[in-house]
This record gives sequence, C-alpha cells and structure tokens, in this order.
Amino acid sequence: MAQVYERVALIGLGLIASSMFWAMKRSGLAGEITGYARSAETRDTAREIGLCDRVCDTMAEAVEGADLVVLCVPVGVMGAVAAELAPALKTGCTLTDVGSVKADVIAQVSPHLPEGVHFIPGHPLAGTEHSGPRSGFAELFDNRWCLLVPVEGTAPEAVAQLRSLWEGMGANVEEMDAEHHDLVLAVTSHTPHLIAYTMVGVADDLRRVTDSEVVKYSAAGFRDFTRIAASDPTMWRDVFLSNKDATLEILGRFTEELFALQRAIRRGDGDHLHAYFTRTRAIRRGIIEAGQDTAAPDFGRSAKK
Amino acid sequence: MAQVYERVALIGLGLIASSMFWAMKRSGLAGEITGYARSAETRDTAREIGLCDRVCDTMAEAVEGADLVVLCVPVGVMGAVAAELAPALKTGCTLTDVGSVKADVIAQVSPHLPEGVHFIPGHPLAGTEHSGPRSGFAELFDNRWCLLVPVEGTAPEAVAQLRSLWEGMGANVEEMDAEHHDLVLAVTSHTPHLIAYTMVGVADDLRRVTDSEVVKYSAAGFRDFTRIAASDPTMWRDVFLSNKDATLEILGRFTEELFALQRAIRRGDGDHLHAYFTRTRAIRRGIIEAGQDTAAPDFGRSAKK
Ligand SMILES: NC(=O)c1ccc[n+]([C@@H]2O[C@H](COP(=O)([O-])OP(=O)(O)OC[C@H]3O[C@@H](n4cnc5c(N)ncnc54)[C@H](OP(=O)(O)O)[C@@H]3O)[C@@H](O)[C@H]2O)c1
Ligand SMILES: NC(=O)c1ccc[n+]([C@@H]2O[C@H](COP(=O)([O-])OP(=O)(O)OC[C@H]3O[C@@H](n4cnc5c(N)ncnc54)[C@H](OP(=O)(O)O)[C@@H]3O)[C@@H](O)[C@H]2O)c1
Repeated sequence: MAQVYERVALIGLGLIASSMFWAMKRSGLAGEITGYARSAETRDTAREIGLCDRVCDTMAEAVEGADLVVLCVPVGVMGAVAAELAPALKTGCTLTDVGSVKADVIAQVSPHLPEGVHFIPGHPLAGTEHSGPRSGFAELFDNRWCLLVPVEGTAPEAVAQLRSLWEGMGANVEEMDAEHHDLVLAVTSHTPHLIAYTMVGVADDLRRVTDSEVVKYSAAGFRDFTRIAASDPTMWRDVFLSNKDATLEILGRFTEELFALQRAIRRGDGDHLHAYFTRTRAIRRGIIEAGQDTAAPDFGRSAKK
Repeated sequence: MAQVYERVALIGLGLIASSMFWAMKRSGLAGEITGYARSAETRDTAREIGLCDRVCDTMAEAVEGADLVVLCVPVGVMGAVAAELAPALKTGCTLTDVGSVKADVIAQVSPHLPEGVHFIPGHPLAGTEHSGPRSGFAELFDNRWCLLVPVEGTAPEAVAQLRSLWEGMGANVEEMDAEHHDLVLAVTSHTPHLIAYTMVGVADDLRRVTDSEVVKYSAAGFRDFTRIAASDPTMWRDVFLSNKDATLEILGRFTEELFALQRAIRRGDGDHLHAYFTRTRAIRRGIIEAGQDTAAPDFGRSAKK
C-alpha cells in the first residue's frame, strides 16, 4: 500500500498507539513515525521493543515536522497535552486523537489550536482489556470501525487523507457528529462497562463471604464481565467523567428497565420476563447478520477464548 | 473408559441432554440410552440425527428399566415431569436433574419420589446460548464444573456412581448444599444474565431512535451482553422465578453499588471511580490464576470468538 503521510507523531505509547505503529508499518503507510510517552519507563520500553522509528524525550521534538499528530492519551488529559504541543505543530498538519469520547475532547483541544492546523477527532472502535506499550498488535483495527468526527469547515482533503490511513490500517471508516457519537458509545460501550465493573464489585464483596468460590465457579455470564472490568481504571474514569450526560441518560433508562424486571421477579410475573427475553434475542440476530460476530457457541465454555 | 450405568434415560432432549448423550457415547459410559422429549418435532429430530439409542413417545417407556434418569427440562416443569414419571421408576435407580437452580427443584421433585429411589440433584456449569436437540456436542462438559447437591441421607455409593458418570463426561465434580449453590449461582450467573438482558433491552429502545447503529457499532462491551442475552427465554424465566430470593438479594446489592458509581459520575468524583475500577481488576487476575480463562486479549476485537 502507498505511503499516506510522510511523518507521523504518536503522543502516548499505549495499546492504541502501539497498535497504530505496527499497523502502519505492516502496510508502509508512513515514512517516519516518532513517538513520545510521559514516563521514561515507557519510552525505554518503546526503544527496547522497536516501537517507533524514533522515540523522543519531549513532545515538541516528536511533533516537529510531523504531517500527522495523533493524541493517544487518556481522554482527561487531551486538553493539557494539546496545549503543550500546539506551539510545535507544523502549519498545514493534521491533528487527530483516538479518545473514546468526542464532544469533551473537542471542547478541551479546540482552544489551543493554532491557525492552519486541521483538527479531525477520531475514535477506533477496537481495544482489549490490556494496556501499555507492549500490548499493541498490527491486527487490532482489522475489520473494525473507526469513527471520524470532523468539525464544521474542515478541509475535505485532510479528512480524506486521514480516512486513507485508517483504511490502510484495516479499519472501516464512518463519519458522524460528536454528540451522536457520544450517545451511541454510551449505550454500546460506556454503560456496559460501568455495569460490568459494578457486578464484579458486588461479587468481590460476596467472595469475602464465600471464599474463592465466585472465582472458581465464574463460568457462566460472570466471566465475560470480569474481562470487561479488567480494563484500565484511568482510561475508564476519564471516559465516564467526560461522557457524563450520555452515560447518566443511559444509566437512567437501564435502572428503570431493571426495576421493572426486578418487580416481575418479585411478583412471579413470568410472562413479562419471557416477553422481555424474547425481544432481546432478536438483537443478537441483527449483530450476527451484520457480521460483527459469529453464531458459533462459545459462551462460558472453553478456557481459551 | 468403563461403563458406569447399564441404562440411562434422558428426559428432555435439548442442549444439555444432547451434550450428555454425545459425551456418554464418546467414552462408552452407558449401555443403552433412551430419550424422551415433549414434542413430536424434537423426537423426530432426535431420531433423524441419531440422538439416543432409542427415542420413546412416552416418558414411562423411556424411564422403564433405567438405572439413571436425568431430568433435562426447564426448572419450572421439574415437579410436573417428576410426578408423571415417578410411577415408572425402577426401585434402586438414581434420579438426577441438570437444572440451574437447586433448592426449588428439590422442593418440586421430593414429594413425588417413590421409596427406594436415590434422588441426587445436579447442575453442570456449562452451556451455550443455543438450545434444542441439534445444539449439543460431546465436549461441552470438558474441564467444567458439575455441582452435585445430595440431600441428607443419600447412599454414598449412588453419589459416587453419578460422580463417575460426570467425570467420565469430562467434568470436575464438587458437592455443596442447595442454598449455597443458589447464592453462588445468583452472583456468578443469574444476576449477570438479568443485567445483560436489561442492557440489551435498553439498547433496543434506543436503536429505534438511532436506526441500526447500535447493532453496527456493538463492538466494545455490548457484544458480550448480546450473546448472553440471546439465551433461551423459557429457561431463564424459570431460573429467575425459582431462584427469586438469591437473585433479588444480589440485585439489591448491585443497584446499591451502581447508584454509588452513578453519584460519583454526577459529582465528578474521579477518585471513587478509579479506586473501584482498580479493585475489580484483581478479581480478573484471580480467575486467570484459577485457570478459568486466559490472559489473551480478545475483548471487542475479532469477529470469530
Ligand atoms: N483501550 C481501549 O480499549 C481503547 C479503545 C479505543 C480508544 N481508546 C482511547 O485511546 C486512548 C489511549 O488508550 P490506550 O488504551 O492506548 O491507553 P494506555 O495503553 O493506558 O496508554 C496511555 C498512554 O498515555 C500516556 N499518558 C497517560 N497520562 C498522560 C499524561 N497526563 N500526559 C501525557 N501522556 C500521558 C501514557 O504514558 P505512560 O505510559 O508514560 O504512563 C501511555 O503511554 C484513550 O483516550 C482511550 O480512551 C482506548
Ligand atoms: N443452557 C444452559 O446454558 C444450561 C446450563 C446448565 C444447566 N441448564 C439447565 O438444563 C435444563 C435444560 O436446559 P437446555 O439448555 O438443555 O434446554 P433446551 O435446549 O431448551 O431443551 C429443553 C428440553 O426440555 C423439554 N421440555 C420443555 N418443556 C417441557 C415440559 N413442560 N415437559 C416436558 N419437556 C419439556 C423440551 O422439549 P421440546 O423440545 O419438545 O420443547 C426440550 O427437549 C434446564 O433446567 C436448564 O436450567 C442449562
């Protein structure tokens, strides 16, 4: 595949940045890729494993001369990081991010943007529960969505170029506006994560009563939750604080529905339960038809997933 | 492996019964295996695919002369089924079940037990979201737990024999009492299922607003929930109605914790969130150390699971 950007700078060197590096290298999408991470430890690890063509000790150094700068840090620090690197941005370059929330990142970053820089927020819908510079791999974005959220008036060529990069890394790209992104993600990702964290916390309390049985018998249902709830605490704290409104809205709907089911259980209203469970089955079918998952049985079964 | 029972009867021919059949055949654990299902359709399917050595049109016929009778029907009908087949039970035989709830099944079945029959309730912690006679496979129980819940005074030889059967089918067997079983399962399986159903229901409502986007972007977090929520509505209705007390207790704890997290989000209390999410990570580690899952990244990533 042809080179898309001459020089790319990755700010933050965790799961997403390292996966982007390996994915860009896989297809020769960038000439030189520089990288910066906050801690000397992460920078040393990056040098050790060959993550980035050049690992820099300052943000300014990494960003200098870059045609594309990618913010790969937790959502809560996007504004501070943008403020620090803004003076070093080359005129005509593109600044993007990979944060899981978009309206708040736009609000944080926009005030610091110099003239002549294209800011195109983005969010790859791909991840694992692992983090750090060693956790990335080239295939992370293959056949996953990457959502671009261009603000009004962005140059179409700049958007097209960033789209080419993500497509070159294996992703399918769509555009949508920031508020809509945040609502869709609140329901498909953020609220499910919060719920999984909560359920695992409840089990932890109970485990103290029943020894290690909860861990031992965690086969059906709970095991998926523990995987979700093993994700990075800083990233998720930031996600909930910065997508507060949409998360609280979906949580409100969730508790309302949960109370209705709880009442049905208490009253022994089997028809209500059966009708509800039948309706949710159809959604699964939609997901399988959309090719996002297979019908192959897996749940709670094998030790390898 | 040596034969454990001369004649086994499977009552109900769905996921669990068909998996038991193939697992027993794999290792020659039973001489003849008979089967009965409520509908002619399921019985015809069973005959067509060679499920059971002999498919019978009445329960009495299937049960006649059997050394082991296994109730593989939804929890809500265990009592009615036991009442119907009780007169046909051979003296000295063992009656067991595979229901996901134990105290309620014991209460339903016990009144119908004839003298000289060993009743040993059981529950294999293994399943998929699929159901019916075609969904079973011999490996379902391999390296999974099977919990036996013998009532007081049960003959130890009868328990040992049933244990051998489950071990022959690949399972690890443990014994515990019924109340404890129901609490452990409420936290590791039943409540997580209810929550997954609820979240998928919420998304369904929202989907009507946002078209098919919820399905399309269901990568991170939500997809696991849809798989859980695709399970059989009748089975799960019965589970919640028959494990009412434990489920309501765990649900109460869950909503309490969820409200605390919700309040932290509303107030912007990042420390509370971070501390909570850090605690839940440790549980995941416990599960990996217990060998119930691997650390390999998977979540929200690949289309094949
Ligand atoms: N993980 C996912 O599933 C996923 C999916 C899609 C999008 N995202 C988004 O991608 C972004 C990065 O996530 P990730 O999973 O790659 O995280 P990660 O593996 O934890 O890496 C985060 C990186 O950000 C750096 N960093 C943290 N705080 C910083 C600060 N105050 N100033 C400068 N650098 C800082 C860290 O540096 P040190 O190593 O030196 O601490 C680290 O290199 C987040 O915005 C997240 O919302 C994540
Ligand atoms: N699926 C799991 O993940 C799982 C795991 C562990 C334990 N269990 C327990 O195993 C049991 C069976 O579950 P399964 O997944 O094998 O279910 P399934 O695939 O839905 O099969 C249920 C079987 O029960 C029969 N049946 C239903 N209602 C009946 C009635 N009123 N009278 C007589 N037979 C009736 C059905 O007959 P027709 O086909 O003719 O309708 C069918 O053959 C349940 O108690 C469940 O709690 C399930």
